[in-house]
Amino acid sequence: MKASAKANANIALIKYWGKKDKTLNIPFNSSLSVTLDKLFTITSVEFNKDLSNDIFVINDSIQSDSEHSKLSLFLDLVRNRAGINFKAKVISENNFPTASGLASSSSGFAALALAATKAAGLNLSPKELSILARKGSGSASRSVYGGFVMWEKGEAGVDESSFATQLFDENYWPEFKVVVVILQNEKKDTSSRDGMNNTVATSPFYNVWLATIDEDLKNLRNALKNKRFSALGETAELNCLKMHATMLTAKPSLVYWNSQTVELMKLISKWRAENLEVYFTIDAGPQVKILCLDKDLIRLQKKLSELKFIQNIIVCSAGSGAKLI
Amino acid sequence: MKASAKANANIALIKYWGKKDKTLNIPFNSSLSVTLDKLFTITSVEFNKDLSNDIFVINDSIQSDSEHSKLSLFLDLVRNRAGINFKAKVISENNFPTASGLASSSSGFAALALAATKAAGLNLSPKELSILARKGSGSASRSVYGGFVMWEKGEAGVDESSFATQLFDENYWPEFKVVVVILQNEKKDTSSRDGMNNTVATSPFYNVWLATIDEDLKNLRNALKNKRFSALGETAELNCLKMHATMLTAKPSLVYWNSQTVELMKLISKWRAENLEVYFTIDAGPQVKILCLDKDLIRLQKKLSELKFIQNIIVCSAGSGAKLI
Repeated sequence: MKASAKANANIALIKYWGKKDKTLNIPFNSSLSVTLDKLFTITSVEFNKDLSNDIFVINDSIQSDSEHSKLSLFLDLVRNRAGINFKAKVISENNFPTASGLASSSSGFAALALAATKAAGLNLSPKELSILARKGSGSASRSVYGGFVMWEKGEAGVDESSFATQLFDENYWPEFKVVVVILQNEKKDTSSRDGMNNTVATSPFYNVWLATIDEDLKNLRNALKNKRFSALGETAELNCLKMHATMLTAKPSLVYWNSQTVELMKLISKWRAENLEVYFTIDAGPQVKILCLDKDLIRLQKKLSELKFIQNIIVCSAGSGAKLI
Repeated sequence: MKASAKANANIALIKYWGKKDKTLNIPFNSSLSVTLDKLFTITSVEFNKDLSNDIFVINDSIQSDSEHSKLSLFLDLVRNRAGINFKAKVISENNFPTASGLASSSSGFAALALAATKAAGLNLSPKELSILARKGSGSASRSVYGGFVMWEKGEAGVDESSFATQLFDENYWPEFKVVVVILQNEKKDTSSRDGMNNTVATSPFYNVWLATIDEDLKNLRNALKNKRFSALGETAELNCLKMHATMLTAKPSLVYWNSQTVELMKLISKWRAENLEVYFTIDAGPQVKILCLDKDLIRLQKKLSELKFIQNIIVCSAGSGAKLI
């Protein structure tokens, strides 16, 4: 009753921010992401009748009570489905900093969903896995798949209505790159979960944000279909700015950016004016993800290497979906 | 036919951003400001029949053709009203950096309106001066008055409908301070004029921004009336964040902040959590204006003095309206 899985993190090009069903993690809007080949989580799960409690060792650390309880509740979903009641030992490692806006929960719950169901003797379809992973963390529904992935918003109260599907696989556009720029390893102040609930409840802009998503999704899907990089980058950057503008106007205001985030955002605009075709996207943390094509990668890396405030960069292509290892 | 005037700059606590009548400079929303005692413009105007062209010397510099033409058109309003057609020599000095988000046009056009009308032999009422100054720069309508000032939005096409009035004079709340923090002396990339037109035309959030102004104005007026500083600070900071969120979502995105702006914004939130009661407001430039009361001023100055990225700070109280000198 043991299995291990690897799942890649994903980065949303059209963002998810806000739940219409907090119990089922069903979002107000559909979102679109690319799964990344260089940021991943490896998780092993063993159900064992001799254990009296679940044990979670994540990045060599024991979890807090609230994290432990959240993970145990997630395993209960698997146990109930498999008809077992054994406790589990879960060991999980990210190859990148946790909870710093690098989508660790997307790869984490996708890997856990796959490893836990397999260890429990279940064989879920990708769609079933996506629905299960969603209940651990919304963005994890997308990391079940590789390449370019759409997560359908579905309906509140209807568990099976909200899941991800693959639009294009990881080999579709090999020239497309996401350069993850790591500015700072600190944990962020406000979790995505608390931040999005607060934004939905208090930002006067939240409904407008939602009202613009369908057009952004249409533009991004068209850009992907025709491999029109400029349209993709413009749409993704604008969608990111709208999400952060909505966060900024929550009460209290949520500012996930730090000074280096803004410095890099402004440099990216400047570089673009100098014909280096790069766009940014930023999630609920300070890190900046730069979108570019292979043709501009070396010039971009040279520019980034001259910036003293950058700790590390990770050049990603589209990666594969969650798999057993 | 010569006169000199001094006018103080003002800082909006409820912001002006966007014109419903670009010819008359009539705004979409009413705004509320405090006139500052330490940032001012002194302007002298002489109409002289021997001049063949208007001459403008502003901070010891000759103006560009477009700036020259804008200023000459403003003087034409005065000449038409006075029934004269002499050209003028205008000498104007700010005691602070121009066009860096420090509201130089507010004090500049208020001083010019007063000096030019007086030199032309006119004696305008404060209301008439406010209407005239507005046509040079919207925020200048407020700098005609001292203390706390409200600029009524009025109606498009109706010149006399949009003017400022004084809510409380400069002696009303002596403990109230605005600490202007100068981070950078560079001129901003996008003028307020271009930035606001672009925001109105392209931001999906612009209408929501407008829809929230009346409540912000009501809250701020109540806070002022009862000298409730926390309510004033919270309302002003939220209003500022909404304006910047609206700018961020214009196409192209307008980011008036720089890295130091964001660093200081985050520190201000942190200091507030440590019971230093300070709030920020930011205009169309990187500088940060910190709102506080006398009781916290020394602690605030000590904190600011420890920050290496600050070039200068100017501690302001509410100042007087435009006057002849």
